[in-house]
Amino acid sequence: MPVSPITLFFDFSSPYSYLASTQIEALAARHDRGIEWVPVLLGPVFAATGSRPLTQQPLKAEYSLRDLARSARFLGVPYHHPQPFPVATQQAARVLVALQRAQSPLAVPWTHKVFEDYFVHGRDISQMPVLHAIGASLRLDAAQIDAWCADAAVKDQLRAHVERALRAGMCGAPFFVVDDEPFWGVDRLPQLERWLQARF
Amino acid sequence: MPVSPITLFFDFSSPYSYLASTQIEALAARHDRGIEWVPVLLGPVFAATGSRPLTQQPLKAEYSLRDLARSARFLGVPYHHPQPFPVATQQAARVLVALQRAQSPLAVPWTHKVFEDYFVHGRDISQMPVLHAIGASLRLDAAQIDAWCADAAVKDQLRAHVERALRAGMCGAPFFVVDDEPFWGVDRLPQLERWLQARF
Repeated sequence: MPVSPITLFFDFSSPYSYLASTQIEALAARHDRGIEWVPVLLGPVFAATGSRPLTQQPLKAEYSLRDLARSARFLGVPYHHPQPFPVATQQAARVLVALQRAQSPLAVPWTHKVFEDYFVHGRDISQMPVLHAIGASLRLDAAQIDAWCADAAVKDQLRAHVERALRAGMCGAPFFVVDDEPFWGVDRLPQLERWLQARF
Repeated sequence: MPVSPITLFFDFSSPYSYLASTQIEALAARHDRGIEWVPVLLGPVFAATGSRPLTQQPLKAEYSLRDLARSARFLGVPYHHPQPFPVATQQAARVLVALQRAQSPLAVPWTHKVFEDYFVHGRDISQMPVLHAIGASLRLDAAQIDAWCADAAVKDQLRAHVERALRAGMCGAPFFVVDDEPFWGVDRLPQLERWLQARF
């Protein structure tokens, strides 16, 4: 019986999603699992939960900046909190959706490069020239990227991803589902791994 | 130079605080640290952060019940989500404050027993007869417990604890401070331990 992949719902503007993106492939490989990368937009998720970005909440704002820097050190990956933060990510997400629809081998590289451009290099990934430059590094044409971002089928697919995430119970990012078991947060990866090992 | 203790701000009605209470003593012992147990009330913390109990938030409610049960299994400790939840904890906290003021060796046993009564045995720790029964198991007199709960100096001390917690940046429970470094959540204990090892 084929095993199902680890589904990862994320927003390109979510720092903890970026941190998770640096860890999940090695974890999945240790357990012979694939990964289904599902880009969503956190705006509708926050609307559903009555929440907002941590950095806009009293006390949690200051704490979260410290926690993010420390969590990155803990995982051994680079992190620089970007400004502006957060930013709109529907264009970056649409390009990923289009690459996935085309079954392009560039889908995962695009994902990592967008995260790195924002959370390591501090480039504003809401801006099309920034996305064009990321595309160029992958030999993707700027006109193609623009066309994908305007494609109604791609837009519909991204909306469907958001609806699917909410149906799956997504209450924050990153949000994982493995064999119907939900895990919220990069800090739940140890539990996710235990689940893969032992269905504990 | 004497090392400072690990300060743990918690509310007796916080499930993740209970989980942390089952782990922190072994962790502290591994690093020759003491623990300063500081009972607070989450109500003022939620007011300061604009938050409320996870179990009262859409989507997060369902997720958090699953996450709590799984986190307890992950840590290897018993957990049964109590009803009613949450409950008022100022009386349980006042007794702890009074025991600490008296430098009683029963302060830590009281803490564990209150947590266990609520999160393992499902007894409503907002009720004085429940607190009296816990006290009896520690040879504490019911009249003494009532007197502590009515003691103005004890009440003031508990209020001062809440104010201190907010000044320390407490944005949820459990909240730890080690050498001025804040850690929020039982899921941050691995980072707290790394901090004790290496100031990473």
